Amino acid sequence: MSAEIICVGTELLLGEILNSNSQYLAQALANLGIPHYYQTVVGDNPDRIKAAIAIAMERADILIFTGGLGPTPDDLTTETIADFFDTALVENTAVIDDIAAKFAQTGRVMTPSNRKQALIPVGAQVLDNPTGTAPGIIWHPRPNLLILTFPGVPSEMHTMWETVAVPYLKQQGWGQEIIYSRVLRFRGIGESALAEKVVDLFDLQNPTVAPYAGKGEVRLRVSCKAASEAIAQQLMAPIIAKIQAIAGLDYFGQDDDTLASVVGNLLRQQRQTISVAESCTGGGLGAMLTEQPGSSEYFWGGVIAYDNHVKETLLRVDAQLLSNQGAVSGAVAEAMALGVKNQLGTDWGVSITGIAGPGGGTAEKPVGTVYIGIADPQNAVSHHLCQFGDRRGRELTRYLSACQGLDLLRRQLLTASED
Amino acid sequence: MSAEIICVGTELLLGEILNSNSQYLAQALANLGIPHYYQTVVGDNPDRIKAAIAIAMERADILIFTGGLGPTPDDLTTETIADFFDTALVENTAVIDDIAAKFAQTGRVMTPSNRKQALIPVGAQVLDNPTGTAPGIIWHPRPNLLILTFPGVPSEMHTMWETVAVPYLKQQGWGQEIIYSRVLRFRGIGESALAEKVVDLFDLQNPTVAPYAGKGEVRLRVSCKAASEAIAQQLMAPIIAKIQAIAGLDYFGQDDDTLASVVGNLLRQQRQTISVAESCTGGGLGAMLTEQPGSSEYFWGGVIAYDNHVKETLLRVDAQLLSNQGAVSGAVAEAMALGVKNQLGTDWGVSITGIAGPGGGTAEKPVGTVYIGIADPQNAVSHHLCQFGDRRGRELTRYLSACQGLDLLRRQLLTASED
Repeated sequence: MSAEIICVGTELLLGEILNSNSQYLAQALANLGIPHYYQTVVGDNPDRIKAAIAIAMERADILIFTGGLGPTPDDLTTETIADFFDTALVENTAVIDDIAAKFAQTGRVMTPSNRKQALIPVGAQVLDNPTGTAPGIIWHPRPNLLILTFPGVPSEMHTMWETVAVPYLKQQGWGQEIIYSRVLRFRGIGESALAEKVVDLFDLQNPTVAPYAGKGEVRLRVSCKAASEAIAQQLMAPIIAKIQAIAGLDYFGQDDDTLASVVGNLLRQQRQTISVAESCTGGGLGAMLTEQPGSSEYFWGGVIAYDNHVKETLLRVDAQLLSNQGAVSGAVAEAMALGVKNQLGTDWGVSITGIAGPGGGTAEKPVGTVYIGIADPQNAVSHHLCQFGDRRGRELTRYLSACQGLDLLRRQLLTASED
Repeated sequence: MSAEIICVGTELLLGEILNSNSQYLAQALANLGIPHYYQTVVGDNPDRIKAAIAIAMERADILIFTGGLGPTPDDLTTETIADFFDTALVENTAVIDDIAAKFAQTGRVMTPSNRKQALIPVGAQVLDNPTGTAPGIIWHPRPNLLILTFPGVPSEMHTMWETVAVPYLKQQGWGQEIIYSRVLRFRGIGESALAEKVVDLFDLQNPTVAPYAGKGEVRLRVSCKAASEAIAQQLMAPIIAKIQAIAGLDYFGQDDDTLASVVGNLLRQQRQTISVAESCTGGGLGAMLTEQPGSSEYFWGGVIAYDNHVKETLLRVDAQLLSNQGAVSGAVAEAMALGVKNQLGTDWGVSITGIAGPGGGTAEKPVGTVYIGIADPQNAVSHHLCQFGDRRGRELTRYLSACQGLDLLRRQLLTASED
């Protein structure tokens, strides 16, 4: 038994809207433990919709349609499905009354075209739409084939799924077994290097482990089929523990954790404060740290020292050092970190200075050269050189630089707390 | 002739990621005038990928794959396509060299699993990936059937599409009649208010004018079908001029223009410099301004004054003022703008102080209250109060605050230059 998602709408084929419905339904099916192996997008064209139904019926038992239920002539989903199964449409009185009531409520007049939305295939059940005028259908046109239709408007579809489809599918026996997933997040190791370390786990059947790349991080997804979340968690716990042990400090969190939230939690736990001194990131590290609600508990502020003059005046970086070593250097990164820490009186100071490009590179310091400085509560300073290369582009280089600053701090905070 | 988009990835079937690639490719195909009638999503499973190929071949002549080109065992797209067409894979030396060079540049070591990415079906051409390690292929496995593959990482796919696939497809005769679009960008006016002002233009057939909402801005898309860009531009010019005249200062730019790039260009033209003082945005305004390459010409830096202490020490905001008026006030916003301008010695100073939420709101100053201060070259200061409300959430409130800071500056720069 499996489901197939069929999204109907020429606007999807023109790229005018992002297909968020398929993501919503994919998650919703996973939550109920209903496997699905294919998604299809097709335009508002009866012949092509029928071709998609013929194919989907061969490979799935539950066909879930979104889109094409509206009142306009290009909304053809219901009548095309009925036609495919040689079934007549009948006007459903309850739906007519419901549409009329909704129009009356908002002071609008129901148009003849709205009557079209009340046409339901003979033998189908109405799938109520509490928030809009387009109901869907629940229909078994043949034994062992279930068709559900939803409007394309995401908010209406979500409400109908939650309030009608989920109870219906549970009553049919689905949702007894769920698919539960956790995403483990890593930094400081490449996708292929991590994959090689945990390659044995990729053969597991339940839970399963699969890698995928993210921006500035690597992820492993651990998924489990089980009767409940609690059982899934139990089955997954030893696998997750094993991965964490293998990855060591390269593992930084799971699910909604971000480098900024992990660093923030560590600072909060250790009752320590931080300030930042940023050159090439221009405020991006501070912005990342303050994404966290309540970050004022540990983040005091910083200096955006884009121009060298600002590095001298507000961060007290030695002019001599700047001219001898250059603004993009380990020594200046350290001076900036120490400078901001001392000027603002925080426990930690983190600095970033580099060449984000596209211009400004030299043979010695090519585009993508970034130095990160960290000053710790004992005023010990260190720096770290990153070579991001010139192919990542300015935005990604700046983003990765800020991530790297957070990650270095995370590692120091974790090591410090073990002392 | 038509194309089909086939997105490969179990993560799509689990609903873990939103399928933005299909939207991108749909628009890209429309721009070249290549029809496409179906999109398919399938998991990382060879049999099902093969089934999808068999179906797609029957209804399209150009199959465009995204996803499954990575180095790990579940990346199966290339080998499955080759297997479907009974074609052997060969290791491509140029790709091996390219991958090795990319690893060397970032100081990482190439792993054996990365060699897999260099396996190309015999007879296929490499579709270069300038930014990542996974190249795609351009392949005619049979007469009148073209296969293009791309990695699933959107940024890599976009670059490959623009730099390799588009020139290739144009050479094949596509894109002779093009659809040319420009996006006009507005700030300071709502979508429906703007729509009402230009409602007559929505009935045009070629060019067409359509509104859509963006994050922190409103957009009108003007699109034209024509034999060339030059002809399209000619047809569109009077319409665009009319819209600009109607919108006045609310029009800020088009296409890739951003508030930051427009402000940057104005500062560069007027040979003036700027610094920022940020509280609730935590560096986000500085980060936006420095997104522009070459922004060091006019952006000198700033102070992230998250904590009040920092407002006093680095920005010289009067402690009395802070305690009397509160950090979130027009008077403090003005003092911050003037403070940063004077401390850093720039022509302009822009400040932001507010309550981004979710906590910290009061009856008098609810969540979403943000003050923006601007100090001009003559040391005249002013402030502007924004009430973003509490329903937008922390991230969007911070983003809109930074946009508003840039927009106020833009209007002052435009007015000043007219004097």
